[in-house]
Amino acid sequence: MKLKELCEVSGCRVPTVKYYLREGLLHPGAHVNAREADYDASHVERLRLLRALREVGNLSIAAVGNVIDAIEGPSLDVHEVLGSAVHALGPAPVETTAGYAAERAEVLAYLDELGWIVAPEAPAVDLLASILARVRDFWGQGADVHVFDRYARAIDGLAAGDLDVIGDLGDLESTIRRMVVGTVLWDNAIIALRRLAAENQSRRRYTSLSAQASARKRAHHPPPASPD
Amino acid sequence: MKLKELCEVSGCRVPTVKYYLREGLLHPGAHVNAREADYDASHVERLRLLRALREVGNLSIAAVGNVIDAIEGPSLDVHEVLGSAVHALGPAPVETTAGYAAERAEVLAYLDELGWIVAPEAPAVDLLASILARVRDFWGQGADVHVFDRYARAIDGLAAGDLDVIGDLGDLESTIRRMVVGTVLWDNAIIALRRLAAENQSRRRYTSLSAQASARKRAHHPPPASPD
Repeated sequence: MKLKELCEVSGCRVPTVKYYLREGLLHPGAHVNAREADYDASHVERLRLLRALREVGNLSIAAVGNVIDAIEGPSLDVHEVLGSAVHALGPAPVETTAGYAAERAEVLAYLDELGWIVAPEAPAVDLLASILARVRDFWGQGADVHVFDRYARAIDGLAAGDLDVIGDLGDLESTIRRMVVGTVLWDNAIIALRRLAAENQSRRRYTSLSAQASARKRAHHPPPASPD
Repeated sequence: MKLKELCEVSGCRVPTVKYYLREGLLHPGAHVNAREADYDASHVERLRLLRALREVGNLSIAAVGNVIDAIEGPSLDVHEVLGSAVHALGPAPVETTAGYAAERAEVLAYLDELGWIVAPEAPAVDLLASILARVRDFWGQGADVHVFDRYARAIDGLAAGDLDVIGDLGDLESTIRRMVVGTVLWDNAIIALRRLAAENQSRRRYTSLSAQASARKRAHHPPPASPD
Protein backbone atom coordinates (compact mmCIF):
# COMPACT_ATOMS: atom_id res chain seq x y z
CA MET A 1 0.00 0.00 0.00
CA LYS A 2 1.04 3.59 -0.48
CA LEU A 3 1.81 6.10 2.26
CA LYS A 4 -1.68 7.63 2.12
CA GLU A 5 -3.39 4.29 2.61
CA LEU A 6 -0.95 3.31 5.37
CA CYS A 7 -1.97 6.46 7.23
CA GLU A 8 -5.67 5.74 6.81
CA VAL A 9 -5.38 2.15 7.98
CA SER A 10 -3.17 2.94 10.97
CA GLY A 11 -4.91 6.14 12.07
CA CYS A 12 -1.63 8.09 11.97
CA ARG A 13 -1.12 11.43 10.24
CA VAL A 14 1.31 11.68 7.27
CA PRO A 15 3.81 13.97 9.07
CA THR A 16 3.83 11.57 12.02
CA VAL A 17 4.63 8.59 9.80
CA LYS A 18 7.39 10.53 8.03
CA TYR A 19 8.80 11.50 11.41
CA TYR A 20 8.86 7.86 12.54
CA LEU A 21 10.63 6.91 9.30
CA ARG A 22 13.26 9.62 9.82
CA GLU A 23 13.80 8.55 13.44
CA GLY A 24 14.21 4.92 12.39
CA LEU A 25 11.26 3.83 14.54
CA LEU A 26 9.42 2.61 11.42
CA HIS A 27 11.30 0.53 8.88
CA PRO A 28 11.30 1.91 5.30
CA GLY A 29 8.87 0.54 2.74
CA ALA A 30 9.97 -1.35 -0.35
CA HIS A 31 11.39 0.96 -3.00
CA VAL A 32 8.95 1.50 -5.90
CA ASN A 33 10.42 4.58 -7.54
CA ALA A 34 12.22 7.77 -6.49
CA ARG A 35 9.05 9.23 -4.97
CA GLU A 36 7.12 6.21 -3.76
CA ALA A 37 7.48 3.22 -1.46
CA ASP A 38 5.27 0.25 -0.80
CA TYR A 39 4.16 -0.56 2.75
CA ASP A 40 2.76 -3.80 4.12
CA ALA A 41 1.10 -5.32 7.18
CA SER A 42 4.34 -5.10 9.19
CA HIS A 43 4.23 -1.30 8.84
CA VAL A 44 0.60 -1.15 9.97
CA GLU A 45 1.42 -3.29 13.02
CA ARG A 46 4.44 -1.16 13.93
CA LEU A 47 2.42 2.05 13.62
CA ARG A 48 -0.26 0.62 15.90
CA LEU A 49 2.42 -0.17 18.45
CA LEU A 50 4.00 3.30 18.13
CA ARG A 51 0.60 4.92 18.54
CA ALA A 52 -0.13 2.88 21.67
CA LEU A 53 3.25 3.73 23.19
CA ARG A 54 2.89 7.44 22.41
CA GLU A 55 -0.81 8.07 22.99
CA VAL A 56 -1.68 5.61 25.74
CA GLY A 57 1.72 5.12 27.38
CA ASN A 58 2.63 8.82 27.02
CA LEU A 59 6.20 7.71 26.30
CA SER A 60 8.84 10.12 25.01
CA ILE A 61 10.37 9.40 21.60
CA ALA A 62 13.56 8.34 23.42
CA ALA A 63 11.62 5.82 25.55
CA VAL A 64 9.80 4.55 22.46
CA GLY A 65 13.21 4.09 20.85
CA ASN A 66 14.29 1.90 23.76
CA VAL A 67 11.23 -0.31 23.35
CA ILE A 68 11.83 -0.67 19.61
CA ASP A 69 15.52 -1.42 20.27
CA ALA A 70 14.44 -4.20 22.64
CA ILE A 71 12.12 -5.64 19.98
CA GLU A 72 14.77 -5.52 17.28
CA GLY A 73 17.66 -6.43 19.57
CA PRO A 74 19.29 -9.84 19.87
CA SER A 75 17.38 -10.98 22.97
CA LEU A 76 15.37 -14.11 22.39
CA ASP A 77 13.63 -13.82 25.75
CA VAL A 78 10.08 -12.57 25.23
CA HIS A 79 9.62 -11.91 28.94
CA GLU A 80 12.68 -9.66 28.86
CA VAL A 81 11.46 -7.72 25.83
CA LEU A 82 8.00 -7.29 27.38
CA GLY A 83 9.65 -6.22 30.64
CA SER A 84 11.65 -3.49 28.92
CA ALA A 85 8.46 -2.15 27.35
CA VAL A 86 6.54 -2.16 30.63
CA HIS A 87 9.49 -0.70 32.56
CA ALA A 88 9.59 2.18 30.07
CA LEU A 89 6.08 3.12 31.26
CA GLY A 90 7.38 3.91 34.74
CA PRO A 91 5.85 4.43 37.27
CA ALA A 92 7.95 7.23 38.74
CA PRO A 93 8.55 7.14 42.50
CA VAL A 94 6.51 9.44 44.71
CA GLU A 95 8.63 12.50 45.40
CA THR A 96 10.12 12.22 48.85
CA THR A 97 12.59 14.42 50.67
CA ALA A 98 14.46 11.59 52.39
CA GLY A 99 16.31 8.80 50.60
CA TYR A 100 14.77 5.36 50.94
CA ALA A 101 17.55 2.82 50.52
CA ALA A 102 16.36 0.98 53.65
CA GLU A 103 12.81 0.81 52.32
CA ARG A 104 14.08 -0.45 48.98
CA ALA A 105 15.82 -3.37 50.67
CA GLU A 106 12.66 -4.12 52.67
CA VAL A 107 10.54 -4.09 49.51
CA LEU A 108 12.91 -6.50 47.76
CA ALA A 109 12.83 -8.84 50.79
CA TYR A 110 9.04 -8.58 50.82
CA LEU A 111 8.77 -9.52 47.13
CA ASP A 112 10.99 -12.48 47.87
CA GLU A 113 8.65 -13.48 50.69
CA LEU A 114 5.67 -13.22 48.31
CA GLY A 115 7.55 -15.42 45.85
CA TRP A 116 7.38 -12.75 43.16
CA ILE A 117 10.46 -12.83 40.98
CA VAL A 118 11.00 -9.42 39.36
CA ALA A 119 13.93 -7.47 37.95
CA PRO A 120 15.41 -5.39 40.83
CA GLU A 121 15.58 -2.41 38.45
CA ALA A 122 11.79 -2.48 37.89
CA PRO A 123 10.58 1.11 38.47
CA ALA A 124 7.70 -0.22 40.58
CA VAL A 125 10.22 -1.36 43.22
CA ASP A 126 11.34 2.25 43.65
CA LEU A 127 7.76 3.46 43.72
CA LEU A 128 6.80 0.98 46.42
CA ALA A 129 9.89 1.91 48.48
CA SER A 130 9.04 5.62 48.24
CA ILE A 131 5.44 4.87 49.30
CA LEU A 132 6.67 2.95 52.33
CA ALA A 133 8.86 5.94 53.27
CA ARG A 134 5.82 8.20 52.90
CA VAL A 135 3.63 5.90 54.97
CA ARG A 136 6.20 6.10 57.77
CA ASP A 137 6.42 9.84 57.37
CA PHE A 138 2.66 10.23 57.84
CA TRP A 139 1.69 7.22 59.97
CA GLY A 140 4.74 6.71 62.12
CA GLN A 141 8.05 4.92 61.72
CA GLY A 142 6.55 1.68 63.04
CA ALA A 143 4.69 1.03 59.77
CA ASP A 144 5.74 -2.30 58.33
CA VAL A 145 6.10 -3.39 54.71
CA HIS A 146 3.27 -5.84 55.40
CA VAL A 147 0.81 -2.94 55.21
CA PHE A 148 0.72 -3.94 51.53
CA ASP A 149 -0.44 -7.51 52.31
CA ARG A 150 -4.14 -7.05 51.68
CA TYR A 151 -3.63 -5.55 48.24
CA ALA A 152 -0.69 -7.77 47.29
CA ARG A 153 -2.78 -10.90 47.80
CA ALA A 154 -5.77 -9.56 45.86
CA ILE A 155 -3.63 -8.25 43.01
CA ASP A 156 -1.64 -11.45 42.59
CA GLY A 157 -4.82 -13.25 41.58
CA LEU A 158 -5.98 -10.43 39.31
CA ALA A 159 -2.64 -10.19 37.49
CA ALA A 160 -2.89 -13.80 36.34
CA GLY A 161 -6.29 -12.97 34.86
CA ASP A 162 -4.84 -9.92 33.13
CA LEU A 163 -2.52 -12.13 31.14
CA ASP A 164 -5.49 -14.29 30.16
CA VAL A 165 -7.09 -11.15 28.73
CA ILE A 166 -3.88 -10.21 26.90
CA GLY A 167 -3.91 -13.73 25.58
CA ASP A 168 -1.53 -15.79 23.54
CA LEU A 169 1.74 -14.44 22.39
CA GLY A 170 1.10 -14.29 18.68
CA ASP A 171 3.11 -11.60 17.00
CA LEU A 172 5.62 -9.97 19.38
CA GLU A 173 4.72 -6.41 18.43
CA SER A 174 1.01 -6.92 18.90
CA THR A 175 1.66 -8.67 22.24
CA ILE A 176 3.68 -5.68 23.42
CA ARG A 177 1.00 -3.30 22.18
CA ARG A 178 -1.73 -5.17 24.06
CA MET A 179 0.47 -5.35 27.15
CA VAL A 180 1.24 -1.59 27.11
CA VAL A 181 -2.35 -0.55 26.41
CA GLY A 182 -3.63 -3.02 28.99
CA THR A 183 -1.14 -1.91 31.64
CA VAL A 184 -1.89 1.80 31.30
CA LEU A 185 -5.64 1.56 30.86
CA TRP A 186 -6.02 -0.95 33.68
CA ASP A 187 -3.87 1.17 36.02
CA ASN A 188 -6.28 4.01 35.44
CA ALA A 189 -9.39 1.85 35.56
CA ILE A 190 -8.36 0.47 38.94
CA ILE A 191 -7.77 3.96 40.33
CA ALA A 192 -11.16 5.10 39.05
CA LEU A 193 -12.98 2.04 40.38
CA ARG A 194 -11.28 2.31 43.74
CA ARG A 195 -12.27 5.96 44.11
CA LEU A 196 -15.87 5.13 43.25
CA ALA A 197 -16.00 2.09 45.53
CA ALA A 198 -14.49 4.18 48.34
CA GLU A 199 -17.01 6.95 47.82
CA ASN A 200 -19.86 4.46 48.02
CA GLN A 201 -18.43 2.82 51.14
CA SER A 202 -17.77 6.20 52.75
CA ARG A 203 -21.36 7.27 52.09
CA ARG A 204 -22.67 4.12 53.76
CA ARG A 205 -20.39 4.47 56.73
CA TYR A 206 -20.21 8.18 57.38
CA THR A 207 -23.54 9.66 56.37
CA SER A 208 -25.22 8.32 59.49
CA LEU A 209 -22.43 9.69 61.64
CA SER A 210 -22.75 13.18 60.24
CA ALA A 211 -24.76 14.74 63.00
CA GLN A 212 -22.43 13.35 65.62
CA ALA A 213 -19.33 14.56 63.81
CA SER A 214 -20.66 17.97 62.90
CA ALA A 215 -20.71 18.75 66.61
CA ARG A 216 -16.94 18.36 66.53
CA LYS A 217 -16.57 20.76 63.65
CA ARG A 218 -14.78 23.81 64.93
CA ALA A 219 -16.22 27.15 63.88
CA HIS A 220 -13.24 29.40 64.24
CA HIS A 221 -13.51 33.12 64.90
CA PRO A 222 -10.29 34.85 63.89
CA PRO A 223 -9.15 37.64 66.19
CA PRO A 224 -9.19 41.15 64.66
CA ALA A 225 -5.39 41.43 64.47
CA SER A 226 -3.43 38.77 62.57
CA PRO A 227 0.23 38.93 63.63
CA ASP A 228 2.58 36.27 62.49
CA MET B 1 3.28 27.84 71.28
CA LYS B 2 5.19 30.39 69.21
CA LEU B 3 5.64 30.36 65.46
CA LYS B 4 9.06 28.73 65.65
CA GLU B 5 7.78 25.83 67.74
CA LEU B 6 4.70 25.45 65.52
CA CYS B 7 7.03 25.00 62.55
CA GLU B 8 9.14 22.42 64.35
CA VAL B 9 6.15 20.38 65.49
CA SER B 10 4.36 20.46 62.13
CA GLY B 11 7.41 19.98 59.92
CA CYS B 12 6.59 23.13 57.92
CA ARG B 13 9.04 25.92 57.12
CA VAL B 14 8.40 29.43 58.51
CA PRO B 15 7.79 31.07 55.10
CA THR B 16 5.30 28.30 54.28
CA VAL B 17 3.35 28.89 57.48
CA LYS B 18 3.33 32.66 56.86
CA TYR B 19 2.09 32.04 53.34
CA TYR B 20 -0.77 29.84 54.61
CA LEU B 21 -1.71 32.57 57.12
CA ARG B 22 -1.75 35.22 54.37
CA GLU B 23 -3.86 32.99 52.11
CA GLY B 24 -6.33 32.33 54.93
CA LEU B 25 -5.70 28.58 54.79
CA LEU B 26 -4.43 28.64 58.38
CA HIS B 27 -6.40 30.56 61.00
CA PRO B 28 -4.46 33.26 62.88
CA GLY B 29 -3.05 32.51 66.33
CA ALA B 30 -4.24 34.30 69.46
CA HIS B 31 -2.89 37.84 69.69
CA VAL B 32 -0.05 38.11 72.27
CA ASN B 33 1.54 41.41 71.26
CA ALA B 34 2.23 43.34 68.07
CA ARG B 35 4.94 40.91 66.98
CA GLU B 36 3.83 37.59 68.42
CA ALA B 37 0.86 35.20 68.34
CA ASP B 38 0.14 32.03 70.22
CA TYR B 39 -0.66 28.83 68.31
CA ASP B 40 -2.33 25.68 69.59
CA ALA B 41 -3.10 22.08 68.64
CA SER B 42 -5.68 23.20 66.04
CA HIS B 43 -2.90 24.96 64.12
CA VAL B 44 -0.68 21.87 64.22
CA GLU B 45 -3.56 19.73 62.95
CA ARG B 46 -4.38 22.17 60.14
CA LEU B 47 -0.73 22.34 59.04
CA ARG B 48 -0.55 18.53 58.96
CA LEU B 49 -3.61 18.53 56.71
CA LEU B 50 -2.19 21.26 54.45
CA ARG B 51 1.10 19.38 54.15
CA ALA B 52 -0.71 16.18 53.21
CA LEU B 53 -2.82 17.97 50.58
CA ARG B 54 0.17 19.75 49.09
CA GLU B 55 2.93 17.14 49.35
CA VAL B 56 1.05 13.89 48.98
CA GLY B 57 -2.03 15.03 47.06
CA ASN B 58 -0.01 17.44 44.88
CA LEU B 59 -2.95 19.85 45.04
CA SER B 60 -2.70 23.44 43.85
CA ILE B 61 -3.26 26.20 46.41
CA ALA B 62 -6.65 26.84 44.76
CA ALA B 63 -7.67 23.20 45.18
CA VAL B 64 -6.45 23.21 48.78
CA GLY B 65 -8.60 26.31 49.30
CA ASN B 66 -11.64 24.38 48.07
CA VAL B 67 -11.00 21.59 50.57
CA ILE B 68 -10.59 24.08 53.44
CA ASP B 69 -13.76 25.88 52.33
CA ALA B 70 -15.60 22.56 52.50
CA ILE B 71 -14.29 21.94 56.02
CA GLU B 72 -15.23 25.40 57.22
CA GLY B 73 -18.42 25.64 55.19
CA PRO B 74 -21.93 25.16 56.50
CA SER B 75 -22.31 21.52 55.39
CA LEU B 76 -22.96 19.17 58.27
CA ASP B 77 -22.54 16.11 56.08
CA VAL B 78 -19.17 14.49 56.74
CA HIS B 79 -19.45 12.26 53.69
CA GLU B 80 -19.95 15.36 51.54
CA VAL B 81 -16.93 17.14 53.02
CA LEU B 82 -14.76 14.04 52.60
CA GLY B 83 -16.06 13.71 49.03
CA SER B 84 -15.05 17.26 48.15
CA ALA B 85 -11.54 16.56 49.45
CA VAL B 86 -11.19 13.31 47.53
CA HIS B 87 -12.71 14.80 44.35
CA ALA B 88 -10.10 17.58 44.52
CA LEU B 89 -7.43 14.87 44.08
CA GLY B 90 -8.75 14.04 40.61
CA PRO B 91 -8.09 11.72 38.81
CA ALA B 92 -8.01 13.51 35.47
CA PRO B 93 -9.53 11.66 32.51
CA VAL B 94 -7.22 9.96 30.06
CA GLU B 95 -6.74 12.30 27.13
CA THR B 96 -8.90 11.17 24.27
CA THR B 97 -9.56 12.69 20.88
CA ALA B 98 -13.25 11.77 20.75
CA GLY B 99 -15.88 12.92 23.22
CA TYR B 100 -17.30 10.19 25.42
CA ALA B 101 -20.81 11.25 26.43
CA ALA B 102 -22.15 7.81 25.49
CA GLU B 103 -19.50 6.08 27.60
CA ARG B 104 -20.28 8.38 30.52
CA ALA B 105 -23.93 7.30 30.46
CA GLU B 106 -22.87 3.66 30.29
CA VAL B 107 -20.54 4.08 33.27
CA LEU B 108 -23.30 5.69 35.34
CA ALA B 109 -25.69 2.86 34.45
CA TYR B 110 -22.97 0.35 35.34
CA LEU B 111 -22.40 1.93 38.76
CA ASP B 112 -26.13 1.75 39.33
CA GLU B 113 -26.02 -1.93 38.43
CA LEU B 114 -23.18 -2.45 40.93
CA GLY B 115 -25.26 -0.67 43.55
CA TRP B 116 -22.55 1.95 44.06
CA ILE B 117 -24.06 5.32 44.88
CA VAL B 118 -21.63 8.09 43.96
CA ALA B 119 -21.86 11.77 43.03
CA PRO B 120 -22.24 11.97 39.21
CA GLU B 121 -19.65 14.77 39.21
CA ALA B 122 -17.00 12.48 40.75
CA PRO B 123 -13.90 12.84 38.53
CA ALA B 124 -13.46 9.07 38.54
CA VAL B 125 -16.68 8.74 36.49
CA ASP B 126 -15.08 10.80 33.72
CA LEU B 127 -11.86 8.83 33.97
CA LEU B 128 -13.68 5.51 33.66
CA ALA B 129 -15.70 6.81 30.68
CA SER B 130 -12.52 7.96 28.93
CA ILE B 131 -10.91 4.57 29.56
CA LEU B 132 -13.92 2.79 28.06
CA ALA B 133 -13.60 5.03 24.98
CA ARG B 134 -9.90 4.14 24.77
CA VAL B 135 -10.60 0.42 25.18
CA ARG B 136 -12.97 0.62 22.21
CA ASP B 137 -10.44 2.62 20.25
CA PHE B 138 -7.80 -0.06 20.73
CA TRP B 139 -9.78 -3.27 21.15
CA GLY B 140 -12.81 -2.66 18.98
CA GLN B 141 -16.14 -0.94 19.40
CA GLY B 142 -17.72 -4.13 20.74
CA ALA B 143 -16.00 -3.76 24.11
CA ASP B 144 -18.57 -3.63 26.88
CA VAL B 145 -18.53 -1.71 30.15
CA HIS B 146 -18.52 -5.12 31.87
CA VAL B 147 -14.81 -5.44 31.01
CA PHE B 148 -14.41 -3.77 34.40
CA ASP B 149 -16.29 -6.55 36.25
CA ARG B 150 -13.31 -8.51 37.51
CA TYR B 151 -11.66 -5.49 39.08
CA ALA B 152 -14.89 -3.89 40.27
CA ARG B 153 -15.76 -6.96 42.32
CA ALA B 154 -12.29 -7.28 43.85
CA ILE B 155 -12.03 -3.57 44.63
CA ASP B 156 -15.43 -3.33 46.27
CA GLY B 157 -14.24 -5.68 49.01
CA LEU B 158 -10.91 -3.93 49.38
CA ALA B 159 -12.47 -0.46 49.68
CA ALA B 160 -14.45 -1.51 52.74
CA GLY B 161 -11.18 -2.61 54.34
CA ASP B 162 -9.58 0.72 53.43
CA LEU B 163 -12.08 2.53 55.60
CA ASP B 164 -11.29 0.15 58.46
CA VAL B 165 -7.66 1.26 58.13
CA ILE B 166 -8.66 4.93 58.07
CA GLY B 167 -10.68 4.19 61.16
CA ASP B 168 -13.11 6.16 63.24
CA LEU B 169 -14.02 9.67 62.36
CA GLY B 170 -12.47 11.48 65.28
CA ASP B 171 -11.50 15.02 64.36
CA LEU B 172 -12.74 16.01 60.88
CA GLU B 173 -9.41 17.45 59.73
CA SER B 174 -7.42 14.43 60.76
CA THR B 175 -10.00 12.15 59.09
CA ILE B 176 -9.63 14.11 55.86
CA ARG B 177 -5.86 14.02 56.16
CA ARG B 178 -5.83 10.24 56.63
CA MET B 179 -8.31 9.86 53.76
CA VAL B 180 -6.24 12.00 51.35
CA VAL B 181 -2.93 10.40 52.29
CA GLY B 182 -4.48 6.94 52.15
CA THR B 183 -6.13 7.56 48.79
CA VAL B 184 -3.01 8.84 47.07
CA LEU B 185 -0.52 6.43 48.62
CA TRP B 186 -2.77 3.42 48.06
CA ASP B 187 -3.43 4.43 44.43
CA ASN B 188 0.30 4.34 43.87
CA ALA B 189 0.88 1.22 45.93
CA ILE B 190 -1.72 -0.66 43.90
CA ILE B 191 -0.13 0.42 40.62
CA ALA B 192 3.30 -0.64 41.87
CA LEU B 193 2.05 -3.99 43.19
CA ARG B 194 0.15 -4.70 39.99
CA ARG B 195 3.22 -4.03 37.85
CA LEU B 196 5.29 -6.33 40.01
CA ALA B 197 2.66 -9.08 40.11
CA ALA B 198 2.27 -8.80 36.33
CA GLU B 199 6.02 -9.04 35.80
CA ASN B 200 6.17 -12.16 37.93
CA GLN B 201 3.21 -13.74 36.14
CA SER B 202 4.63 -12.78 32.75
CA ARG B 203 7.93 -14.39 33.64
CA ARG B 204 6.19 -17.62 34.59
CA ARG B 205 4.05 -17.66 31.50
CA TYR B 206 6.28 -16.33 28.79
CA THR B 207 9.81 -17.39 29.62
CA SER B 208 9.12 -20.97 28.55
CA LEU B 209 7.55 -19.75 25.35
CA SER B 210 10.55 -17.66 24.41
CA ALA B 211 12.16 -20.03 21.98
CA GLN B 212 8.88 -20.57 20.20
CA ALA B 213 8.16 -16.86 19.93
CA SER B 214 11.63 -15.80 18.98
CA ALA B 215 11.16 -17.74 15.78
CA ARG B 216 8.39 -15.29 14.96
CA LYS B 217 10.60 -12.31 15.59
CA ARG B 218 11.06 -10.57 12.31
CA ALA B 219 14.59 -9.50 11.54
CA HIS B 220 14.02 -6.78 9.02
CA HIS B 221 16.49 -5.83 6.37
CA PRO B 222 15.83 -2.29 5.20
CA PRO B 223 16.34 -1.66 1.51
CA PRO B 224 19.22 0.66 0.61
CA ALA B 225 16.99 3.54 -0.51
CA SER B 226 14.51 5.02 1.96
CA PRO B 227 11.89 6.97 0.03
CA ASP B 228 8.82 8.16 1.83
